[in-house]
Amino acid sequence: MTLGQRLVKDYDAERVSIAVPGSHSALQILLGAKTEGLRAILLVRRDLAPLYQRYPHLYDEAIVLDSWAELASERIASRLRRENAVLVPHAGLVEYVGVERAERLQLPIHGNRLLFRIEADQHAKMRLLEEAGIPTPRRYPSPRDVDGLVIVKLPGAKGGRGYFLASTPEGVEEGLRRLVEQGVIDDPSKAIIQEYVVGVPAYYHYYASRLYSRVELLGADIRYESNVDGLRRLPPRYAESLEPSFVVVGNLPLVMRERLLLKIIEYGERFARTVEEVTGMPMIGPYSLESIVRDDLEIRVFEFSGRIVAGTNVYMGVGSPYASLYWGTEPMWMGRRIAREIREAAEKGRLADIVT
Amino acid sequence: MTLGQRLVKDYDAERVSIAVPGSHSALQILLGAKTEGLRAILLVRRDLAPLYQRYPHLYDEAIVLDSWAELASERIASRLRRENAVLVPHAGLVEYVGVERAERLQLPIHGNRLLFRIEADQHAKMRLLEEAGIPTPRRYPSPRDVDGLVIVKLPGAKGGRGYFLASTPEGVEEGLRRLVEQGVIDDPSKAIIQEYVVGVPAYYHYYASRLYSRVELLGADIRYESNVDGLRRLPPRYAESLEPSFVVVGNLPLVMRERLLLKIIEYGERFARTVEEVTGMPMIGPYSLESIVRDDLEIRVFEFSGRIVAGTNVYMGVGSPYASLYWGTEPMWMGRRIAREIREAAEKGRLADIVT
Amino acid sequence: MTLGQRLVKDYDAERVSIAVPGSHSALQILLGAKTEGLRAILLVRRDLAPLYQRYPHLYDEAIVLDSWAELASERIASRLRRENAVLVPHAGLVEYVGVERAERLQLPIHGNRLLFRIEADQHAKMRLLEEAGIPTPRRYPSPRDVDGLVIVKLPGAKGGRGYFLASTPEGVEEGLRRLVEQGVIDDPSKAIIQEYVVGVPAYYHYYASRLYSRVELLGADIRYESNVDGLRRLPPRYAESLEPSFVVVGNLPLVMRERLLLKIIEYGERFARTVEEVTGMPMIGPYSLESIVRDDLEIRVFEFSGRIVAGTNVYMGVGSPYASLYWGTEPMWMGRRIAREIREAAEKGRLADIVT
Repeated sequence: MTLGQRLVKDYDAERVSIAVPGSHSALQILLGAKTEGLRAILLVRRDLAPLYQRYPHLYDEAIVLDSWAELASERIASRLRRENAVLVPHAGLVEYVGVERAERLQLPIHGNRLLFRIEADQHAKMRLLEEAGIPTPRRYPSPRDVDGLVIVKLPGAKGGRGYFLASTPEGVEEGLRRLVEQGVIDDPSKAIIQEYVVGVPAYYHYYASRLYSRVELLGADIRYESNVDGLRRLPPRYAESLEPSFVVVGNLPLVMRERLLLKIIEYGERFARTVEEVTGMPMIGPYSLESIVRDDLEIRVFEFSGRIVAGTNVYMGVGSPYASLYWGTEPMWMGRRIAREIREAAEKGRLADIVT
Repeated sequence: MTLGQRLVKDYDAERVSIAVPGSHSALQILLGAKTEGLRAILLVRRDLAPLYQRYPHLYDEAIVLDSWAELASERIASRLRRENAVLVPHAGLVEYVGVERAERLQLPIHGNRLLFRIEADQHAKMRLLEEAGIPTPRRYPSPRDVDGLVIVKLPGAKGGRGYFLASTPEGVEEGLRRLVEQGVIDDPSKAIIQEYVVGVPAYYHYYASRLYSRVELLGADIRYESNVDGLRRLPPRYAESLEPSFVVVGNLPLVMRERLLLKIIEYGERFARTVEEVTGMPMIGPYSLESIVRDDLEIRVFEFSGRIVAGTNVYMGVGSPYASLYWGTEPMWMGRRIAREIREAAEKGRLADIVT
Repeated sequence: MTLGQRLVKDYDAERVSIAVPGSHSALQILLGAKTEGLRAILLVRRDLAPLYQRYPHLYDEAIVLDSWAELASERIASRLRRENAVLVPHAGLVEYVGVERAERLQLPIHGNRLLFRIEADQHAKMRLLEEAGIPTPRRYPSPRDVDGLVIVKLPGAKGGRGYFLASTPEGVEEGLRRLVEQGVIDDPSKAIIQEYVVGVPAYYHYYASRLYSRVELLGADIRYESNVDGLRRLPPRYAESLEPSFVVVGNLPLVMRERLLLKIIEYGERFARTVEEVTGMPMIGPYSLESIVRDDLEIRVFEFSGRIVAGTNVYMGVGSPYASLYWGTEPMWMGRRIAREIREAAEKGRLADIVT
């Protein structure tokens, strides 16, 4: 029995609520909770509260924190447990409280809490994908092995900062040397040297439903990145001198060719199965696979997110093409899907099935 | 009287159903049928069935085929006729059974079946557009006439494979010679040498409604193509050495400036009128014009699809801005629009008007 | 008391109607009026009428004009006042009748009519943004000050025509000299020399509600521009010889990272406050800020539109993610939002609050 399962045993299922840290995709999760008629609790750092104050109708209670660290305190946890709260984690959570404390949070979590640790380790992430039989870009153990275009990724880098491209062993070595000199990294051997897959990026949004015993493909998106998506607007003579950066500033909705869907769904299902095998806990709730689609229609998954991705924001409130395949013309988005599962689990006395 | 009109005379209009081959845009057509309360029949090749098995609630019956060729067999056709099925064709159909058999399918088809033959011949397609008075890119009869940037298209090429750009007679000739050497084509004179129109691509989705006596503009999209839409993310020094390819992997929603809409609608209406003049059968159901919009707001149509295009998938289940101009806040997408017309035709005893 | 406030005193609030010039975003405004159950009046120049005739159910009355100049005539104004019409202005209005006449239109306007004059003067526009404390691109008083990549904008240029890039004083001077020679401008000193902000474009849609005492962020979009968004599809060797142009032909939906939203909302609120301070009249109804988002997540606003922008068309009929944060799963788009405010103001006897 997981920590979360033990904790929900004491819950009053008729008064279950949803708690979410205020950032990343909190708005759509709050909107989902209210749409499903659930009580919504916002946890928010004081300086970020003004955004949510513009939408006071989206939550029943705001717990204002002086620092994100408080999120992991027993004071907050016990208060939330008294409110029968299920915590919905997103990329912000682990960033705010760290893997260790996130893992031991004394709250039922709608997600697999053992995945936090794997997600924090770029090498472990790639191994998980490989164990799932999901095709990934080729990895080069050493700069000397490089024989084509590669992308060099830094462990723990945020939003693509410091990533660079190279096409020769010397190019990789020089790039790493520069990052060491600049103090960006200290151990160049920790960098991941990955085949640069030529194709187009596509991000897939999944929801692992315990109640419906299925993985639902709920959407897809493309990231809108600064400055790379702006450089293409410059004539080559100006763009040449600018190094592209890949900082996500937004997302665009996307649908895939129908003939790619089976592959995309199967990869999502394999991922869920493998997470369960590796962690001994079921995959629960939202996650994402992040890929390049080549021009031979092969997909290479270079990254995953074990929780809700911000790309799902594109479907907030209005629903997505893929969600309609399960939910018809009822507008369904990830935040509402989460709330739907929690509400139905509470109604069926199955809260223990949808938390860890 | 067309073949389809003869066949529907024996139909029980109260039990009309929709049949669709399982690929391309089948999911949105099935969803449309279920949303409109019609019986939906999926025709699917064994290896593709697993995708549709994820959505068992979207069809009432699945006919699993060992090969697509069976689609055109009398065994299948008679079974479908017993179920009062109207077949909704998409780009997959002709690909699977060939023009000749598609044309003679012993089933009522929601579309103009004489258009199959025209669509299979790139030269005939361009002629049809020209007869309709729809502006198309300039065509060069011979490589020697080339005096600017051109795109060379191969007859029957799928998804843009083998297409190439050139800007001189020598460039065109060399490109064709290479393709002959590679065995991609045998007769270079069949290649179409077309002005490369500088501008942006835009694809328009139309629906020719016999019941409402109008052509509806239901949406627009942009194709998301591998690898060309990924190359722009590479610095020029890396992108230079890669040849762009144009394989469609997905679609993005698009709206056009309102001042372009009249032109777009008129081209759609002219297309429908000309199809009727040329084939002697009305244009029925969905089709698409594929264009480049220049910076003087002139539109050049370089291609059409006489049936539903996959770009309409972007509006599946959620509706589109342009559809709302006819259907208000009721979510309307191409697959549902088709089912709406078939349902209303059945109710009004007008099935013969919406099939060929 | 403003002109519009005086005029609505004579209105029969139970019979209020919405009038809109037929272009730009008229369709979504008409659809909004009909969805809210308001009477809709279309004002349309004879040659543009055919577009709207495709959607006869979207308006109750069409006033066909021989020239846009008639829009500002007392004949039309008195007719509209008899119909208790509130005029919804868009970018077309000022273009058609000129600033002076737009300002003095004898009709209640849903918007701030003193903003017309500011919008017509590129320098005044930038000053307004600066007064609001909204970060803008650096401006260079003279070509000689240029020390990096700049974009040179011409006063009154439509849709980006004639804009050019340069990175040296000589480049700017040469570009201006060429435009003078070509007769595009006569006084090069009126050109605006602006830092070219490296990042990605993003356009935000706001609605200043007097009834709800708030600024609502209702959406965001990206412009789809010919030919610049097509050039990226060309290999560099072909693209190099083509000068990019920036003519808007369509729009794409966009969502922003949640951590950017507070800044985006605050800029919108500051804008509304500053407009009120500067003009002495409240900001009312739709407007837009047009920005570049840098890779350090800083936003630079290079332009605004004091009225509805065409980018809001992407959410017509279907609703937008950001609108759902106020309006839940009820599809809400700018045109409907306008009609909602006018309808509710009429019901509450507050028409004077939502016009100038």
